[in-house]
Amino acid sequence: MVIRVTVFGENVHEQKNRIVAGIYPEGMHSTIAQAINADPDCRAVTVTLQEPEHGLTAEKLAQTDVLIWWGHAAHGDVQDHVVDRVCDAVWSGMGMIFLHSAHFSKPFKRLMGTPCNLTWREAGERERLWLTSRNHPIAAGLPDHFELENEEMYGEPFGVPEPMETVFVSWFQGGEVFRSGLTYKRGAGNVFYFRPGHETYPTFHDANVQRVIRNAVKWAYNPAARIADPNDAPNVPVETAPERIEERGPRLHHDGEQGFR
Amino acid sequence: MVIRVTVFGENVHEQKNRIVAGIYPEGMHSTIAQAINADPDCRAVTVTLQEPEHGLTAEKLAQTDVLIWWGHAAHGDVQDHVVDRVCDAVWSGMGMIFLHSAHFSKPFKRLMGTPCNLTWREAGERERLWLTSRNHPIAAGLPDHFELENEEMYGEPFGVPEPMETVFVSWFQGGEVFRSGLTYKRGAGNVFYFRPGHETYPTFHDANVQRVIRNAVKWAYNPAARIADPNDAPNVPVETAPERIEERGPRLHHDGEQGFR
Amino acid sequence: MVIRVTVFGENVHEQKNRIVAGIYPEGMHSTIAQAINADPDCRAVTVTLQEPEHGLTAEKLAQTDVLIWWGHAAHGDVQDHVVDRVCDAVWSGMGMIFLHSAHFSKPFKRLMGTPCNLTWREAGERERLWLTSRNHPIAAGLPDHFELENEEMYGEPFGVPEPMETVFVSWFQGGEVFRSGLTYKRGAGNVFYFRPGHETYPTFHDANVQRVIRNAVKWAYNPAARIADPNDAPNVPVETAPERIEERGPRLHHDGEQGFR
Amino acid sequence: MVIRVTVFGENVHEQKNRIVAGIYPEGMHSTIAQAINADPDCRAVTVTLQEPEHGLTAEKLAQTDVLIWWGHAAHGDVQDHVVDRVCDAVWSGMGMIFLHSAHFSKPFKRLMGTPCNLTWREAGERERLWLTSRNHPIAAGLPDHFELENEEMYGEPFGVPEPMETVFVSWFQGGEVFRSGLTYKRGAGNVFYFRPGHETYPTFHDANVQRVIRNAVKWAYNPAARIADPNDAPNVPVETAPERIEERGPRLHHDGEQGFR
Repeated sequence: MVIRVTVFGENVHEQKNRIVAGIYPEGMHSTIAQAINADPDCRAVTVTLQEPEHGLTAEKLAQTDVLIWWGHAAHGDVQDHVVDRVCDAVWSGMGMIFLHSAHFSKPFKRLMGTPCNLTWREAGERERLWLTSRNHPIAAGLPDHFELENEEMYGEPFGVPEPMETVFVSWFQGGEVFRSGLTYKRGAGNVFYFRPGHETYPTFHDANVQRVIRNAVKWAYNPAARIADPNDAPNVPVETAPERIEERGPRLHHDGEQGFR
Repeated sequence: MVIRVTVFGENVHEQKNRIVAGIYPEGMHSTIAQAINADPDCRAVTVTLQEPEHGLTAEKLAQTDVLIWWGHAAHGDVQDHVVDRVCDAVWSGMGMIFLHSAHFSKPFKRLMGTPCNLTWREAGERERLWLTSRNHPIAAGLPDHFELENEEMYGEPFGVPEPMETVFVSWFQGGEVFRSGLTYKRGAGNVFYFRPGHETYPTFHDANVQRVIRNAVKWAYNPAARIADPNDAPNVPVETAPERIEERGPRLHHDGEQGFR
Repeated sequence: MVIRVTVFGENVHEQKNRIVAGIYPEGMHSTIAQAINADPDCRAVTVTLQEPEHGLTAEKLAQTDVLIWWGHAAHGDVQDHVVDRVCDAVWSGMGMIFLHSAHFSKPFKRLMGTPCNLTWREAGERERLWLTSRNHPIAAGLPDHFELENEEMYGEPFGVPEPMETVFVSWFQGGEVFRSGLTYKRGAGNVFYFRPGHETYPTFHDANVQRVIRNAVKWAYNPAARIADPNDAPNVPVETAPERIEERGPRLHHDGEQGFR
Repeated sequence: MVIRVTVFGENVHEQKNRIVAGIYPEGMHSTIAQAINADPDCRAVTVTLQEPEHGLTAEKLAQTDVLIWWGHAAHGDVQDHVVDRVCDAVWSGMGMIFLHSAHFSKPFKRLMGTPCNLTWREAGERERLWLTSRNHPIAAGLPDHFELENEEMYGEPFGVPEPMETVFVSWFQGGEVFRSGLTYKRGAGNVFYFRPGHETYPTFHDANVQRVIRNAVKWAYNPAARIADPNDAPNVPVETAPERIEERGPRLHHDGEQGFR
C-alpha cells in the first residue's frame, strides 16, 4: 500500500528571491516531495498556489492520503472555498502536516481555532530540536536531539491549543524556546505541526528534517475509508432508536427533517 | 469582585413558537441571566441577535468576563465580523460557555476547528447526566448524577476535538450516550460546552442545570487583564535577543518589520 | 512482521466456577489468544497467574510486543517484582491492553497513578458501546455502536486520569454510562483500557469485542527498538554539553556520578 | 478563606552541606513557607523527613489544602505507608506541588505512573523560563520569561505522561530544554510540577520563583469537601439502579457485596 502525498508549495519566494531560488531551484515543494519519494512506501506529488484551485481540486484531495503545506508570503491569496475543502478532507480522514510559516496559513488557523501567533527573529541562529516523547513514531531513527546551524527563531508563547502530544521542543541560540513538533486530531484526520523550514536556509535538505517529514507522513496516514460527509448531523427517528421509546412532549421538527445550522 | 456575564440569546423561537414562548415568556436568555444573578458574585445581562451588532459591540465585550451563547434556528444570521470579535475576546481571556444547540454556532465551530456535528432526536425522552470528574469546580454541589425528564437526544460521535476534560457524560432513554460537559482552553480563554437546553422543554428552569451554569461561569472567569492584541506576532530584533548573538546568513525582513500573514 | 502478543489470564474462576468454566473451557486467555491468532499479522500465546513468575519472566517480556491482561479475583496474588518488570517493559515500549476487571490490577493502578475505581452491578443487563472518535484505528471495521446483551455494569465516575483519547462510551440498560475505551501513553508504551469482559458472560466470543482487541493490538504495537533502561537519568558532564559553558558556583556531585534516587 | 499549606522539606543537605546551610540557614522548607506566608490568603507550615511519620499524619493531611514537596538525597527514606496516605489525600482533593528534584520522589512517581527521569548537569548555568500558556493562573503577574542565573540543568526527554497543560518551558545555557511547569489532575487533586530549585543555588529566594509557587498554591487549591474514601468502588444493587431492570443470567457476587481487589 503506497501512501499518496501531496505537497502544497506557495512558490512565491522561490520565484522572486535570488537566495531562495539558489537553495531551492525547483521550489521548496519539489525538495520536500523528493525527500518523501526516497521512501518506497510513499509517492509524493506537488501543487502550487498559482495553479487553478491551487491544484487542490476535490479530485486531487480525494486521491491524497496526506497533504503537506508550506506557505509564508501569500497566505491571504489562498481561496476560502479551497480552505473549506481542505478542512473537510482533514475531518474526513486525510492527514495533514504544516511546516514552519504555515502556522499562519488559513487551514492551520481554521483547524486550530486559535491565533497561532508567536515571536520571531531572522538571524540565521542555531536551533537544536529535542525529542520529548521517546520512541514516538514521528521520531523513529532520530537521535535525542539534532541541530540546524542556521534557522529563523520562533519563540513562545505559541498561540495554539494544548496538543495531543508535544514531540519536539526547540532551543535557540538567542535564548528562546519553542514547541516544535505538535500532534493534533481534528475529526478523523491526524494533524502535525513541525517548526523548521525558513526559506532562506537549506533546512529541507537536512537529513534529520527529511526523516521527520517522512515519519510524520506515516504517522498521519489514516488507512480507513474517508468519511462520506464529515459535517452530517443525522436525525434518528423515534422508531429507529436503539431502545424502544415513545415520543413525549412538544417538538420543533418532523421525523428525518434536517436540523438548523 | 463581581463577574460580569453577558448572555446571548437568539430569541427566535421565543417569538415565533407558542410552546417556547410559554416556557420562556421573557426569552431563554432572561431565564439564564436570572439564574446567574441568583449568585451575588455574578451580574448577568442579556443581548439578542436582533440588536445592532447582536449587542456584542467591542465595548460590550470589553466589559464581559464570561459570555454565554444559546442559538439554534439562526446561526447563519450571526455576522462574521461579530464572530471575529467574539473569538478575539476569547483568545484575550474572556470565558465562554456554549449551551446545547450552540454546538453549531459560528463562534463554537471557529474555536473548535472541527465540524461539531452529532446525531439527534426530538422525543422528549429522559436524559441522565453523570459526573466523570469528581470534585470538578463545574460540578460543585451536584450529585454524582441528575436527570432531566424531557430532553432532546444528542448522540455520539460528537465532532469536537478531544477536550481538556470530560466533566459530564449523558445517558439517554432511547439508547444513546453523549459527552455533555467538555472543557477547552483557546488562547487565554476558558471554554465550556454544556449539552442540555432544548427550547421546547423547561431545562433552564432546572435547579441542577442552573447550578452547572453558575459553576461554569466561575470556572471560566479569568481574572487576568485581557491580552491587548491576541494576534500579535512581534519581531524580536537581534540586539534585544535574550542571549547575545550575531546575525548570520541571508534574511527576508528588516528589523522590527511586521511579518507576513 | 508479526506482532508477538502475550495474554495473561488469572485463570481462577475458570477453575472454580462451573458457569465460567462452561463458557471458557480452556480459559478466557485461550479464547482471547485464539481471537488474536485469527489475524495472520499477530501471534498470541498465553500465560497464567499460576505459572512461576506468572509466566512473565524477563525473557518472556523481551519477546512480547503487546501484553494483554485479564484479572479479577486474585489481583493481590500478583507478585510486586513482576509488576515492576511489566511496568519497566511498558515504559520501554511494550504495548499493553487491560480488559474489564483489570482496572483494579496492580500494573494498571501503577501506570495510571489513580484509584481506578468505579461503581458496578452484576445483573446481566444490556450494554451498548458507542464510538466517540470516528475512524480511530481501534475502531476499524466497527459500526458506530454495537451491543452486548448481557454484561456487568461499570459506572462513572471512573477513577482514572483524563485519557489521551476517549474511544468508546458505554450505555447501560440500568441507567449508567462509562468511558469504555481509553488510550494512554506511559513512557514509550501505548496503553489501552477496554471495559467489557465479565467472566460469567460470553463477551470474549463476541465478534465485535474480538475485533476491538485485534485492532488495539495493532494500535498498541510500537515497532521501535525497546529502550534499554527506561529509568536511566544520565549526568551530562560540562565538557559534553551541546553548547560550550564553564562551570560556575558550588555543586554536590562529581562529573558522571549517578544522581540521588 | 485561608488556604492551609504544608511544606515538606527533606532537610538533609541543609544539615550536612555547608553551602546549602549558608543559603538556607533555616532549611529550604522554611524559605518556601515564608514566601507563601507573604500572601495573606495562605498560611504555610513546615514538616520534615526526620519527624515521626515525616510530620504527615492523617490529621495533618486532613488539615492541609495544598502539600508542597521538596526532596533529593533521601527519597528512599520516605515510608511507603506515608506515601499511600499522601496519594489518598491527593485523590480526595488535596492539591500538591512537586519542586525540582522531587521528580524522583515516591509520591510523584506513584501519581505519574512513569519513570520521571531526565538528564542533568550541575554547572551553575543560566536557565530562562518561558511561559507557554498565556494568562494561565500559575503565571499571574509574571513576564513572558524570567531568568535564574545559576541553576542545575534538567534536560528532555522528561519521563512523565503528557500533562494537562505545559505552562513553562526552560532554556539552558548549555543547550538543553525542559518542560518546567506541568499541570495534572489525579482523582480530585490538582498536581503541579515546577522544575527550578537546586539546593546549592538561592533559587527559592528569587521573587519570580516565589510568585510561581504562590500562584500554584491557589491554582491547586480545591475548595470542595474532601472525598471520604477515594478508593471506594460501590456495588449498585439491581433494586436501586436508576432505570428499572430485572436481573438476568449468572452472577458471582451477592447484592451489596464488596468486589474483588
